[in-house]
Amino acid sequence: MQIFYSSEIKDGNALFSREESGHCLRVLRMRRGDSLTFTDGMGNLYDGVITTDDPKGMTVTITSVKSDPAPRSYRLHVAISPLKNDDRLEWFIEKAVETGIDVITPVVCNRSEKKKIRRERLEGIILSAMKQSARCLLPLLEEPEELDGFLQRHVQGKRMIATCDPSFERIAITEAFACGEDVTILIGPEGDFTPEEVRAAITAGYVPVHMGTGRLRTETAGIAACCSVYLANI
Amino acid sequence: MQIFYSSEIKDGNALFSREESGHCLRVLRMRRGDSLTFTDGMGNLYDGVITTDDPKGMTVTITSVKSDPAPRSYRLHVAISPLKNDDRLEWFIEKAVETGIDVITPVVCNRSEKKKIRRERLEGIILSAMKQSARCLLPLLEEPEELDGFLQRHVQGKRMIATCDPSFERIAITEAFACGEDVTILIGPEGDFTPEEVRAAITAGYVPVHMGTGRLRTETAGIAACCSVYLANI
Repeated sequence: MQIFYSSEIKDGNALFSREESGHCLRVLRMRRGDSLTFTDGMGNLYDGVITTDDPKGMTVTITSVKSDPAPRSYRLHVAISPLKNDDRLEWFIEKAVETGIDVITPVVCNRSEKKKIRRERLEGIILSAMKQSARCLLPLLEEPEELDGFLQRHVQGKRMIATCDPSFERIAITEAFACGEDVTILIGPEGDFTPEEVRAAITAGYVPVHMGTGRLRTETAGIAACCSVYLANI
Repeated sequence: MQIFYSSEIKDGNALFSREESGHCLRVLRMRRGDSLTFTDGMGNLYDGVITTDDPKGMTVTITSVKSDPAPRSYRLHVAISPLKNDDRLEWFIEKAVETGIDVITPVVCNRSEKKKIRRERLEGIILSAMKQSARCLLPLLEEPEELDGFLQRHVQGKRMIATCDPSFERIAITEAFACGEDVTILIGPEGDFTPEEVRAAITAGYVPVHMGTGRLRTETAGIAACCSVYLANI
């Protein structure tokens, strides 16, 4: 099932962006009168009929609203260090959206080699992965933030920091949360968090977790963490 | 820790390929007399000293042998449909090697859009991911095989087929195997296995499993399956 996205829904009609309209009308050659399914990215799925087939801004009249076909009983927030290689962060984000994530925060750590992200490109990947995986909640990509600032936030649910440093008493990530529980996970840069960062996170209520003895790249640790939460809830 | 690879070990000496030798001597600027750590891809980790610094074929004298620092108690074999997009299979393979896999079989199914793989490139990715993740067992990439043929093989341990088709009685992948158990998992193409293929797999002893209600791409299903087995064993 092909799913489209509109963020402008009013009075029973939905307006679509230039990208969505162009994809629908030019690439898929749909026309006025054709039916389609779309989401508002806020958990709703709509059926509608194209009423204005302008490839710069198509409008659709809503015929019915359905609830999310794959609702999740938990919220997942991953704060991950930006990566030197943009491709790897992009892969992480695509896979995190497919397996189910609510908020992504690029968190700048002591050993992070990068502080910036390509927001527009990443938002495009998030939107496309949401549609591809037939999800109805558009994950939020936050602005990059220093770890110190992030740790001051009030965060609901279980808080974990993944670290490879065996000098901290760590539990397996799979043991650190329960099915249905909201989870926030910190994933560090290549070279890991510094011991001071881990200690600051522990003070802020984060539980140190490990993901086995394998040496995982940052984006792999991120995906393994998302899969851990996803698989615990299937 | 930087790990190198040699497949030619004899009489206490190891010979290195042109790629490994060039990387070590030209990129990392190591010289005769320098120490390094390497694996034979068969579970052994060696320390040695460079005795011939020829960038076309370096030789190293072994000083000690250690056992695998991150041994696994299970074997994982994933048979996955080749993907239309080569990048996506490459990404799957890299992540599968990082999280731990023994054998990868590209398995050609009814709905597979591709039958071939780029062997040399994929083998390079496997080697590089093995070294990057400090593993000592070089995973085997088999030749592409038709699903029918693959199903005739005698396979040890738990056998599973991942399918999105709810008309089959499926259990969650997380419930389908135990910690320490050898696992073989079949991952289908975009569009899933055909019902006939699933039935043939069931006849061959494969248990139908699901990976939740999310709609996962082939490579994402593959990595979620690998993470499921990896995380159950951490």
